[in-house]
Amino acid sequence: MSLVVVGSVAYDAVETPHGRVDRMLGGSGTYIALAAGCFTQAAVVAVVGEDFAQEDIDLLASRNIDLEGLERVPGKTFFWSGVYSEDMNDRSTLRTDLNVFADFNPKLPERYRSQPYLVLGNIQPALQRSVREQMSGVRLVGGDTMNYWIRDYREELLGTIRDWDFLLINDSEARMLSGEHNLRRAAKVILDMGPNTLVIKRGEYGAMLFRRDSYFIVPGYLLEEVFDPTGAGDCFAGGFIGYLAERGVDLKSGNVDRRDLSRAVIYGSVMGSFCCEKFGVDRFRTLTRDDIEIRFREFRNFTEF
Amino acid sequence: MSLVVVGSVAYDAVETPHGRVDRMLGGSGTYIALAAGCFTQAAVVAVVGEDFAQEDIDLLASRNIDLEGLERVPGKTFFWSGVYSEDMNDRSTLRTDLNVFADFNPKLPERYRSQPYLVLGNIQPALQRSVREQMSGVRLVGGDTMNYWIRDYREELLGTIRDWDFLLINDSEARMLSGEHNLRRAAKVILDMGPNTLVIKRGEYGAMLFRRDSYFIVPGYLLEEVFDPTGAGDCFAGGFIGYLAERGVDLKSGNVDRRDLSRAVIYGSVMGSFCCEKFGVDRFRTLTRDDIEIRFREFRNFTEF
Repeated sequence: MSLVVVGSVAYDAVETPHGRVDRMLGGSGTYIALAAGCFTQAAVVAVVGEDFAQEDIDLLASRNIDLEGLERVPGKTFFWSGVYSEDMNDRSTLRTDLNVFADFNPKLPERYRSQPYLVLGNIQPALQRSVREQMSGVRLVGGDTMNYWIRDYREELLGTIRDWDFLLINDSEARMLSGEHNLRRAAKVILDMGPNTLVIKRGEYGAMLFRRDSYFIVPGYLLEEVFDPTGAGDCFAGGFIGYLAERGVDLKSGNVDRRDLSRAVIYGSVMGSFCCEKFGVDRFRTLTRDDIEIRFREFRNFTEF
Repeated sequence: MSLVVVGSVAYDAVETPHGRVDRMLGGSGTYIALAAGCFTQAAVVAVVGEDFAQEDIDLLASRNIDLEGLERVPGKTFFWSGVYSEDMNDRSTLRTDLNVFADFNPKLPERYRSQPYLVLGNIQPALQRSVREQMSGVRLVGGDTMNYWIRDYREELLGTIRDWDFLLINDSEARMLSGEHNLRRAAKVILDMGPNTLVIKRGEYGAMLFRRDSYFIVPGYLLEEVFDPTGAGDCFAGGFIGYLAERGVDLKSGNVDRRDLSRAVIYGSVMGSFCCEKFGVDRFRTLTRDDIEIRFREFRNFTEF
């Protein structure tokens, strides 16, 4: 194992124009770990309730994920339900039952604490920070956040991301965090907040990576059918960090190979695109490294000139 | 000369968050010709009124544009005014005075009729068709259209684009024309309407090119300041067709070099990005081929992996 993933492991109910599922495995920690597990062994730190099904444990374990950090406590697993608009660019949350996640206070198993890579899914900044502090000698740390923490927990969030290597957010979050509409200027402001690398996800329009001395942009993959976009951003994060961990990249280094960074963005995009092809985590039941490499080459084919 | 451009030559009044200009040279024919003129000599076919200024004639003539087809008639030049939203993603038309453009009935000078390249700016489909019919032995023809013609002149438009090599529209127009929201499927439907090449402009998100056997996508250039987006789509068209004309590409050929196509999309994107850097056509007063090549290489730098 080289990568520790902290986030939610949940059950979701999702309705899209292509159908509806009343209960399926979800959560940011789940999606990040499933995507990262395609590149390196990932350890997931999360909490679930007594209702968490053995088949879901089995799926995670079968996908290169270490589960010692998955705590099971009395009560029910975090539950979220949402419905997507006709064009799937918007979604409304119908219900959020935090359940056992309300008291989540991540404690890392001893053997996780010395791992070199850490990715923090979108949870409260103070929890992200407490996990960071439990890790000794971590080489690369980064994560996600959202509008709610940016708006209402700004100081806590700024204190948390100050020593992160990368921050991975979407375009509207980047605008909110920086106070700049123009993304090139927003990136400059955010890089002054601490992270040496900023990744901005743009959904169907792709993604961008910014460092002080360079930037990289990739358009989104054109799927013929988007069945369910739930988890696509987290799968992006998992592919991105999973590839960096596989390559042993240190983002703090002054001479990071630019190709490692841009390829990590491509692998993130590849994993996000696979995620949308089926409901929930279903695509990960059969996804192979060959499938991933074929799509990576497709990205090269449709962007090269 | 190798390329004939048909479109409007107009005066615009534009207000953006960066300022306001009450009267400046504009029009689809103007922007297309200015951008294409950076690659090949372009001949413009349009009509202006007695108020059309000598300095505007001089600018066009100085930028590699043949003006024999620019007809001057009694009356006033086409006038358009519009105002952009704060983020410049939307604009409202305040006024459209067709003036002499209302009776525009393009008649091509004799020496234009045998040119190999023809691009038709966004004008009434019947006029586009009449120009096409005046050209003998044209090797490559294509152009633009808009929601108004797609909705209210559908049959006329379909008859017009049937023998075009390329159609160049934006994403919402592609969705409207095809009846498909998904752009990959929209492209298939549109390629069945006649054109062998479809270019979809996505504004700040870049552009895509589709043919039956391949596609290419480029993200948009990240400007730090967008002063005025007026004409950016037409400059894209001018860069695209100008480069194809310079290279002597025949899109009907079964073995078109894929790199010629993707580079034409990049040059289109380069010209669109320059257009936004100043108000109206101002960037074209000083733009050099060196500037263009430097930005082309920038595109390579931020997309290569």
